[in-house]
Amino acid sequence: MNIKITGTGSYIPSVVQKNDSFLKHSFLNTDGTPFENDNTVIIDKFKSITGISERRYVKEEFTSSDIGFFSAEKAIANANINPETLDYIIFAHNFGDIPSGSIQSDMLPSLAVRVKHKLKIKNPKCVAYDLLFGCPGWIEGVIQAQAFIKAGIAKRCLVIGSETLSRVVDKHDRDAMIFSDGAGACILEATEDAGGILSHITESYTLDNAFHLSYGKSFNTELDDKIKYIKMDGRKIYEFALTHVPAAMKACLDASGVDITEVKKVFIHQANEKMDDAILKRFYRLFKMKTPQNIMPMTIGNLGNSSVATVPTLLDVVRHNKLENHSLNTGDVIIFASVGAGMHINAIVYKY
Amino acid sequence: MNIKITGTGSYIPSVVQKNDSFLKHSFLNTDGTPFENDNTVIIDKFKSITGISERRYVKEEFTSSDIGFFSAEKAIANANINPETLDYIIFAHNFGDIPSGSIQSDMLPSLAVRVKHKLKIKNPKCVAYDLLFGCPGWIEGVIQAQAFIKAGIAKRCLVIGSETLSRVVDKHDRDAMIFSDGAGACILEATEDAGGILSHITESYTLDNAFHLSYGKSFNTELDDKIKYIKMDGRKIYEFALTHVPAAMKACLDASGVDITEVKKVFIHQANEKMDDAILKRFYRLFKMKTPQNIMPMTIGNLGNSSVATVPTLLDVVRHNKLENHSLNTGDVIIFASVGAGMHINAIVYKY
Repeated sequence: MNIKITGTGSYIPSVVQKNDSFLKHSFLNTDGTPFENDNTVIIDKFKSITGISERRYVKEEFTSSDIGFFSAEKAIANANINPETLDYIIFAHNFGDIPSGSIQSDMLPSLAVRVKHKLKIKNPKCVAYDLLFGCPGWIEGVIQAQAFIKAGIAKRCLVIGSETLSRVVDKHDRDAMIFSDGAGACILEATEDAGGILSHITESYTLDNAFHLSYGKSFNTELDDKIKYIKMDGRKIYEFALTHVPAAMKACLDASGVDITEVKKVFIHQANEKMDDAILKRFYRLFKMKTPQNIMPMTIGNLGNSSVATVPTLLDVVRHNKLENHSLNTGDVIIFASVGAGMHINAIVYKY
Repeated sequence: MNIKITGTGSYIPSVVQKNDSFLKHSFLNTDGTPFENDNTVIIDKFKSITGISERRYVKEEFTSSDIGFFSAEKAIANANINPETLDYIIFAHNFGDIPSGSIQSDMLPSLAVRVKHKLKIKNPKCVAYDLLFGCPGWIEGVIQAQAFIKAGIAKRCLVIGSETLSRVVDKHDRDAMIFSDGAGACILEATEDAGGILSHITESYTLDNAFHLSYGKSFNTELDDKIKYIKMDGRKIYEFALTHVPAAMKACLDASGVDITEVKKVFIHQANEKMDDAILKRFYRLFKMKTPQNIMPMTIGNLGNSSVATVPTLLDVVRHNKLENHSLNTGDVIIFASVGAGMHINAIVYKY
């Protein structure tokens, strides 16, 4: 038995937020003081580091479970399955549904329940739950789904990653420009076809790195300090990722038995272009190689960092030949990898 | 290989909230109109249905992850294990950490990460994630942990259920009196000892029952209708539970191969005493039997409904002989069962 992805879907929100939409923002330092530089300088520097020109936000009427549902519908259609045959719906997120204009996370009922409800699935044996695991949540959902299949309690699972980070950004924080909204999903199932998941790894570094991404007050000291926003220590995350992600990816590849030269694509969490480039460079350096051309499909330039949604969205876009210079063929070995709040790292080596 | 619970722990919050503390509450109907009856009548009726005389709330300085950590420490000590040997920390909750005075759920980083951080565990291979599955979350965490053990990716897991419902109740809603705070945890591991998990079942009825428990506005129409509180449709939940829970428990027992007469205890989610009595009665009626004496340990009278925490707390209290007329002996067959937001149902048949 192999465990393969038989369908993917994604939802790319319709509101395009270009970098120049931040020109009039009042960006502040962590202590609330204004920056010396003009916003044009701040935005130029931001773009050169992250690679982000624009990002997508959902329309006011949508929440995370809505767009997760849209991506799920597409994955089900793409796999050409009857949704009643799903054994699990796993929904990875980190903030629940936050309606426009609200600061409250609504997770009752859970987002997986909302998706199953909207999919009109009757089958009570289809277990719907939410998974919180930082940005690596979607990959972790795939790892959990394959464990359920291996344990004999599932044959076919829907794994969704969806987030609306536009609802949790502090507009006085430059990092607000990084974050975006999005949703991606896949169908994972037991099959007699060749390939599928060859190996996986998960690591949680919580002793010294638990609060590099956290919920904190606005940089604007005049705002209510009880209201919290997504906050990150970019420098610490960069150092952490460079130290640990390449080694975890190598351990995963070693466990798969696949030679590095056989790897065709690396689908990495789209957090920051410079960081992702540096991770790949270090990863290949562990094999005394230079990073190959066209190995890492990127969507961050136009889509930003949509947390759990970046990897499944990227996979969906490439599977459907919508990203120039990137395609997948049967037998290709690919690596999925992610790093995020926890800090967690995970990776999967997969034969397409 | 068997999969057994080798340690348990619970945290019973220190603030005792007696029924008469609600005497001065302004309870309202769903449309915002006041009740005709005096609060003493309302509270007496409440007590006769739910069995609740008092409930526990956490002190102001604590959140759900704090008390989850307290219960985890005790479970680790009780199992007498080195926490560095844990492969998973699974934290079941539904609202995240809500600091006193806040309406925001803080789940970044996740609560499992916070517990692992406080336990000072270095081992990065100990995977820490949060699971949202309504009140049945802790039982579902145990089911997921055993799947990881069966799949060969874990040997020893910590499963926590913790909630501070006192932070999400609408004080104008009589149902506020049902909800409480609490935390319970267990260590689950692969062992050569006899017994352990014999069978399990999970069902998600999301088509017609997804919103019986949800996040909704206050019954006080003068309050901000954007601020949400835990809301439940008690009548629908009662009907749902009576229709589906006994049958699910029977299916689980049938799958275990154990005869009904061998069942020594049923640890059921403490939602409402009358409902739990009625579920047990219907369950035994499916076997043409009357409910045996002392089959169902109850703590709801003094502890209220603490969601994911009720079952692990109950188990911990009975394992440590702290509940009159209830004890467990090696070889005893017990059933865990829960029902809650989703609507989800799950059950485990377990040989102690």
